[in-house]
Order: sequence, then structure tokens, then C-alpha cells
Amino acid sequence: MTRHFLNTQDWTRAELDAVLAQAARFKRGLAGGASNGRPLEGKSIALVFFNPSLRTRTSFEIGAFQLGGHAVVLQPGKDAWPIEFDLGTVMDGEAEEHIAEVARVLSRYVDMIGVRAFPKFVDWSLDRQDRVLQGFAKYATVPVINMETITHPCQELAHAMALQERFGGTDPGSSPEQVLRGKKYVLTWTYHPKALNTAVANSALTIATRMGMDVTLLCPTPEYVLDERYMDWARANVAEQGGSLTVSHDIESAYSGADVVYAKSWGALPYFGDWEREKPIRERYRHFIVDEAKMALTRNAAFSHCLPLRRNVKATDAVMDSPACIAIGEAENRLHVQKAVMAALARGDGGQDATSGIGVS
Amino acid sequence: MTRHFLNTQDWTRAELDAVLAQAARFKRGLAGGASNGRPLEGKSIALVFFNPSLRTRTSFEIGAFQLGGHAVVLQPGKDAWPIEFDLGTVMDGEAEEHIAEVARVLSRYVDMIGVRAFPKFVDWSLDRQDRVLQGFAKYATVPVINMETITHPCQELAHAMALQERFGGTDPGSSPEQVLRGKKYVLTWTYHPKALNTAVANSALTIATRMGMDVTLLCPTPEYVLDERYMDWARANVAEQGGSLTVSHDIESAYSGADVVYAKSWGALPYFGDWEREKPIRERYRHFIVDEAKMALTRNAAFSHCLPLRRNVKATDAVMDSPACIAIGEAENRLHVQKAVMAALARGDGGQDATSGIGVS
Amino acid sequence: MTRHFLNTQDWTRAELDAVLAQAARFKRGLAGGASNGRPLEGKSIALVFFNPSLRTRTSFEIGAFQLGGHAVVLQPGKDAWPIEFDLGTVMDGEAEEHIAEVARVLSRYVDMIGVRAFPKFVDWSLDRQDRVLQGFAKYATVPVINMETITHPCQELAHAMALQERFGGTDPGSSPEQVLRGKKYVLTWTYHPKALNTAVANSALTIATRMGMDVTLLCPTPEYVLDERYMDWARANVAEQGGSLTVSHDIESAYSGADVVYAKSWGALPYFGDWEREKPIRERYRHFIVDEAKMALTRNAAFSHCLPLRRNVKATDAVMDSPACIAIGEAENRLHVQKAVMAALARGDGGQDATSGIGVS
Repeated sequence: MTRHFLNTQDWTRAELDAVLAQAARFKRGLAGGASNGRPLEGKSIALVFFNPSLRTRTSFEIGAFQLGGHAVVLQPGKDAWPIEFDLGTVMDGEAEEHIAEVARVLSRYVDMIGVRAFPKFVDWSLDRQDRVLQGFAKYATVPVINMETITHPCQELAHAMALQERFGGTDPGSSPEQVLRGKKYVLTWTYHPKALNTAVANSALTIATRMGMDVTLLCPTPEYVLDERYMDWARANVAEQGGSLTVSHDIESAYSGADVVYAKSWGALPYFGDWEREKPIRERYRHFIVDEAKMALTRNAAFSHCLPLRRNVKATDAVMDSPACIAIGEAENRLHVQKAVMAALARGDGGQDATSGIGVS
Repeated sequence: MTRHFLNTQDWTRAELDAVLAQAARFKRGLAGGASNGRPLEGKSIALVFFNPSLRTRTSFEIGAFQLGGHAVVLQPGKDAWPIEFDLGTVMDGEAEEHIAEVARVLSRYVDMIGVRAFPKFVDWSLDRQDRVLQGFAKYATVPVINMETITHPCQELAHAMALQERFGGTDPGSSPEQVLRGKKYVLTWTYHPKALNTAVANSALTIATRMGMDVTLLCPTPEYVLDERYMDWARANVAEQGGSLTVSHDIESAYSGADVVYAKSWGALPYFGDWEREKPIRERYRHFIVDEAKMALTRNAAFSHCLPLRRNVKATDAVMDSPACIAIGEAENRLHVQKAVMAALARGDGGQDATSGIGVS
Repeated sequence: MTRHFLNTQDWTRAELDAVLAQAARFKRGLAGGASNGRPLEGKSIALVFFNPSLRTRTSFEIGAFQLGGHAVVLQPGKDAWPIEFDLGTVMDGEAEEHIAEVARVLSRYVDMIGVRAFPKFVDWSLDRQDRVLQGFAKYATVPVINMETITHPCQELAHAMALQERFGGTDPGSSPEQVLRGKKYVLTWTYHPKALNTAVANSALTIATRMGMDVTLLCPTPEYVLDERYMDWARANVAEQGGSLTVSHDIESAYSGADVVYAKSWGALPYFGDWEREKPIRERYRHFIVDEAKMALTRNAAFSHCLPLRRNVKATDAVMDSPACIAIGEAENRLHVQKAVMAALARGDGGQDATSGIGVS
């Protein structure tokens, strides 16, 4: 059974902690010995982008190189590589190839496959099946990594690592896996001229509850609450890790006493694919922008965002350029956590093996 | 005189056998010693794609990496890089550059050049000149490799290797170069909604006869017979290697007793560029699909295809998912044979040098 | 303060001479010792192409590989990555991201950033601000390299190196930095069906005067004289290095006694963005083509061009295929000078450090 990295929720908390610890060692320039420093020596990863990317692509490609491996970047384009996912179809339409062949052949060439495939934004009941990612995971005989589909687990790890750094988790003698417990974490919806993917919001909710924080999902109306699958994951995490989950539509009480403010815009699911109807609603909530007045309500909170960010729309210049903003560091951490994920998968486990220098040395 | 790999027909049978033997060693993880394992150390290859590619690109890029080299992927796009091929032209039209400069400059940067350039599908008398590939071969001062134009020699070698494996050629004490002699090989045309390139069909005919097999070209009507150049190559191969060449339009007798069934769709040359006229003809032959009933006529034949393949159009799910199907292994072999071709060209010969560990150790 | 390579004019003559000397060592296969041969070991460079490229991309990518590093090629496309450059803007238009975040995040992933960004050809007063390049240089925390914007300093170095080679500068005991002094250098405008960028023309003027040559700018009318900034640079170079600067509209006297003829086409700045008005003017000067009759007026001059070149429009076949033409060698030198620039920047200086094997060994 091939091990994949499709969602953090599939990995144990101990496995995630081991990956974050390895990422921190990579960032400090340590890798636990010479051979462990190049765990991808001679190995390769295919990065399959059904949607464009600059940051994800750069961080994965550089990460593979730094570990001794090589990344092949495949950009079939949004419309250019129609693939069949159903079994039994007479393929006389658009699709030239079945996912079974695509994934099996790639698996013969490379040691890992990263997949980015955004929703098509027409029908959420289809998009929420995450068919491209799940199709690769089903047929590939090598590990598959989610590079953002309807969740974004690599961003989750980068975000968690940035928060651990902010709250002293990298200090000598500290316990990075403990420093986030009980922190007040606000995931705030913000305005954006277009209706965006919920992936990063789903992921923020998932990882914040997984880390045992008191999580508030702040959004304009109940229509902006996230898909029930991710609300369920968050509730399960609260049950397992402690912490709490609250939905709020009140800006002032949500920000009050917060330790972390994470901003993201997304489209309301009831209007999925019918964004013209949603537009006048979202336009009423431009004031959800993260600004100095709101940040003043917090307990000197850290501010972050997954980037790209429209300045003075999602957050003001003053917030972005303040010491509270850890977004650049979080973006940097993508490199380190992805290296740790690739190293764990190259070794064939989730990173927990205490006998290896990679996982826990 | 620079050695190229434009067609298998330009190389001796002994040279091809040496390349296939090296490919088998690469596949087994052997390369004849440390330095021989990285024959492209510090070297580079430019992969010039005038038409898109995922599999060819991945296998060449990974292959170069595994041999210690680096592949630069250039995708000028179908329309984006108009190049002049004639001498003496006043270049005040579309073309910004002459092939003489393109090939010479690239030759200063890299150690090898791979070229993919499909026909334009307007006038076969033009396309059959293979001008892009021949232009690079004429002006480049480094070896040029055909990555599919109007033939596909890398696919030929991958196919031959998969067949050798299937018929015991990789068993201890066997002679891979002998195991295919006298096998009954059927190249069958199949339906496809679009008129496709004849390259893989030309190549299948070429390599199957070269390997000394009894080859049947099965196609709906005489109009689907291949270009005379490739029929001539096949006849010359029969004269040299033994075996035979038969054209058939009868499915039952063609499949009867076959050891190998290789499927491919292509457009009929008399209708080249005028595919609307051909369409009603090809629609009549959907029953050429490879299915279990036809396979039951064979002598437990191996089935293969160069991929991508439309399931239940060219071959049924049952055939694709049967043990007879060696298409995934054949696709994998692209990696190994292309490494062997690059290694042979990097060494400056066709792979026959008995004093080197690469060619024949 | 991060050191960039935005223009040769920002570097001292001694620094440029050191880079050219290192490029010559790279070309001869020498690099001053094992570790110095791989000064980019484990390092990476992002090549950001806002406009397409094949030669620049290949030479940088191969160069990084040969030095032990890795190049990530980012091609956001002409219209695909709208970036905000102004501070304080409410970003509710096209731009999804501010240059501040783009440059800072990339700086966390890679050790150097190359940028290609051509003018938009609408308003020269905007284009001459070179905002994309200057924006990267302002916010990046790693060195930025100009891969052609409104100047082309890498081409300048390749050109200077090719001329040094031609005039004996690589002979034993010669002084490459002296051999060009006092040579008569003609930069001649030539016809081209489209109005082109002035970047290479600006650069030719800059480097030719910097090398102490007697420079003639030959163009059809005063409207084709280059932007005052570059004319000023040229005059400053003459003051510093000796040599001279002359503008001429007379072909015969310009070519007479020339040692170097460098051809380039460009659009006349007074018609910038209004090229239909310029077209009938440029059509009158097709006879500026470099041909054998003009070359016969010179002192056995070297001819060059930055490529791509339209044969029999900018220069005749006879000139291109004559021994006078050094354009292919100049193109090759792009590889060597860019390696030397990257090596100098990786070391954190302009290449002058006499204690290092890279700079001056």
C-alpha cells in the first residue's frame, strides 16, 4: 500500500510533528548526517500542474534539487490534457487517455508525483470529490503529494511551522509541538473581487484545530461557513487535541484577544458556480479587511496569509509591513516542509522512524 | 561527421542490439562501473518540442538526470518560432531566424539536441521531407535525436525491448537479439476519431521487420497502406534479416496464430490534409478495435500500444487490463532505451565499442 | 546592500575586466581549482521571463548546471502575472500581487534572480523607467541579473569577449582589456519589418565606448539616435576611457576603415508606440543591410549581431557565411560570461577579489 500525502488528516499528529521537526532542521541547515542530507539522491518527482503556479513550483523544484533529486515540471494546462476518470467508458470524446495509464506510466519514470488541480467552479458536488488527486492516488504506484486541490496541506505545514517559530517553538529547550495549544486563532474571511477556492480556508481550519488551538472561523454570514467535511475534521480534531471551534460573524469579538489572525477570501458554497449572484453579497463585506484598528483588538497577534495577497483589499499596507506579519516567513517555510514531506515519503513512512536521522535525529 | 539518431534504419543491427543490451543493463540497475554509470556527467541535451509532450519529455529529462547530465526543455510551440529552412531567402516574412543559426548556436550550448516536430498535416509531399529534423541534422555540430517526427525510433527501441522481455530475451543464457526471429507480428490499424500521424506505424513496420519477424500489416483498405519509403525499408529488412512482410485487410486471418498484436491508428495518405473526406471511410472500420474475441484467435499474443490510448475505442478494457498487455512496460522502456541512445551518442559511436563498459560490458 | 547586475555601467571597468577574464577561463575549461569550478554548488537561480526566450534561457540554465547549481525557469507570460509596482494602491484591479511580496518570497527560495522584461511599446517615458527590473532590484534580498529589459548587459559582455578574441586578446601574453582600444567600431541600424526594442543598441553603444573604442552610431536620420540616457553614458565612457563617439547618417564614411561592424534594428523613439507612422520611414532605408560591398570599405572588419537575424534583410548570406562573421561565437560567449557573472555575484562581489581563484587566478 503506497503512502501518499493527500491531506494532513490522513497522517497522525506524531507523523506531522516529525515532519515539522525535520523541516526545522532543514531550515537550520542540519539534516542529520551526510547521506541524510540528500535523501532524494538520484530520485525524481513529477510536478503535475493542471493549474499554473510559480511559488509552489519553485519551492518544490528547488527543494528536490537541494535533496539531491530532480523535479520534472508538467504543465498540461487547464484545457490541454483531457483525462478520463471513469471506468468502462467508450473514450470517443475529448479524453485521449485514462488516468490509469497516466498514473501508471508516470510511476515508472519518477519516485513521487505532486498534483495541483483546482476545482472547476461549476458544481461543488463534483469538485468536492477531488477526482484528479484521488485518481492519481488510486493508480499511481509511487507516493502522491497534494500541491493544492480543494485543500492545501503543504501550506498547512508551512503555516504551522511559522506559528511555532513565532511562539518560541524553535527556542532551545522548547517543545514546538506544544507551543500552539490554547492560542486563540482567528481564520477571517476577507473580500476579494473574485470568488476564490476554499482550499486554504479548509486547510487552515484543519491544521489550527489539529494543533490544539481555540479556533474562531470569522465570516460574514452562515453561507460562508465551509463544507461540512472540513467542519467535521475540525470538530474531530478538537475532540482529539483539545482546543475549541467557534463560528462567528462578529468582527470585534472574534479579534478580541486573538493570538493569530489568518486571512483568506473564498466564495460562498451555496452560490458555487453562480458567482454573479454572490457578487453583490460579498461587495457588502469589504470592511472585513485586516487593518490596524482590528489588529489593535488582539493580544499582539501574529498576522499571516498564504499569498498572493492584494494589498489594501485583504490587508492594509500598515499590517503587511508591520512586525506582526509573518507571511514571508510562512512562504519560505513551504520550501522546508515540502523537503521534509518528500524525505519522509522517499523513506517510505510518515517520518516517525526513530532509527533514522531524517525523521527524528 | 556527427553521428545522429534520426532513424533506426541508419544504424546497423549490431549497433541497435548493443543499445538494447545497454538499455537492459540500465533497467537492471547496472551500468558497467561507476564512471560508466554517469556517461552524461556535466553534459547537457536540449529537448526541442515543436509539439507538446509529457511522456517523451519526462523520460528524456529524467534519463539525462540519471546519467549525470541536464536536459533543457525548449517548447517554442506550434506557431511561436517560425524558422526559415531554405537557403538564399530574403527573410522579410514570418521567420525571424534561419535553421543554420538556430542549430549552430544550440550546438555551442549543449552536447546533444532532441527534436520533436510532427507533420503539419496539409501536404504529405512536404511533410515526408522531415525538414525540421533534417535541418537540425544538417547544421548542428552535435548529435541530433529524433523524438518523433514522421517516424519514432525511440518508441521502436522501447517496443523491441518490451517484446524481447516478453519472449524470454532477458532470461539468463538467452539471446535477446534472437528471440523475436520468426514470431508472427501483426500491426493493426484501429479507429480513432481523428486522423493521426503515421509515425508510430512507420516505425513499427521498420523495427518489426528489422528484428526478423513475420510481419502482417493489417488495415481496412489499400488506402491505409503506409508510405512507400517505409514499405521499402521493411522489404529491405526482410531481405537482410529473414522474416516476411504481408499486407492484409482480413482481420481473422491476420490475428490467427499471432504472437504479437500492436495497435495504432493513422490517417490514410491519399486523403492527407483532406480529412473530412476520409472521415466517413474510417467510421466504417470501428470494428478494428482490439478485443478479447480477436485476441482469442492468436497464439496467446502479447498486446501493446505506444500510448496514449483511448480505451474501448482502440482496445477494450478487458484487453488493456489483461496479462497480455505490455504497454506500460513498453512505456517504461522509453526511459531505458533513450538513456542508452544518449550514452552511445555521448561516447561518439553507435554503441558497438567493445572496449567500453557502456556498449557491451 | 545587495549587489546586482542591472547594467555594466554600475560596475567598474576593473570589475568587468575580471568577469571577462573569468569567462575566458571558463571557456578554456579552467576554473581555478576544484571547488572554484562549482561556485554555485547547491545554489539556485530563478529565471523570470516576462517575455519568451530560448537562447538566454538555455545559456543561463546550462550555465547554472555547469557551475553545480540549478535554474528554475518561471515564464509568467506577457499578460499572465499582473504585478503591482506602486506603493499605497488599493489593489482591486488586475494585479493579484505586489512586487514587494514577489521579490521577497523568491529571495527566500533562490540565491539569485534573473529578469527579462521587454518594453510594452506604448509609452517610452514609462518603459524607460524599467520598472519590473528596478522593482525586483529594490525588494529582492538576493542579487538580480538583467536578462534584457531596455538594455542587455549580458549580451554586452558576450560581444566584448568575442571582439577581444578576434583581436588577439586571448593570445598568450596579450592584454585582453587593451586590445580593443582605438579600434573603429560601427553600430549600424538595419531595416527590419517590425519596430524593435532599442535594448541591444543601447548596450552596444555603452560597452563599445567603455572598451575605449572609436564609436560611430550609424542610423538613417536623427530620429533614430538613441535615448539621451545612453548617449550620456557613452559620452561619460569616452571621457573616462578615451576613444570617441560620433553620430553619422552616411554609410560610406561610417564603414570606411572600420574594424568592427555591429548590426541591429530598432524603432525610432519619436514614433514610439505609433509604429504605423514610422513604417513608411523605415521602409526607405532597407539599403542599410550589411552586404559585401559595404564590408569591402572596412579594414577587414569583424561583423556581428546578437541574433536572431533575418538573413538578406539585416545582413546578406555572403556576410553571414564569411569568416568576418563572429555572431555564433558571440552567442556561445553568452554561456561563459553569464557563468562568470553568476560566479561573481555568488561570491558577493563584482569579481575583483584577487585572493579568490574565481576572480583573477
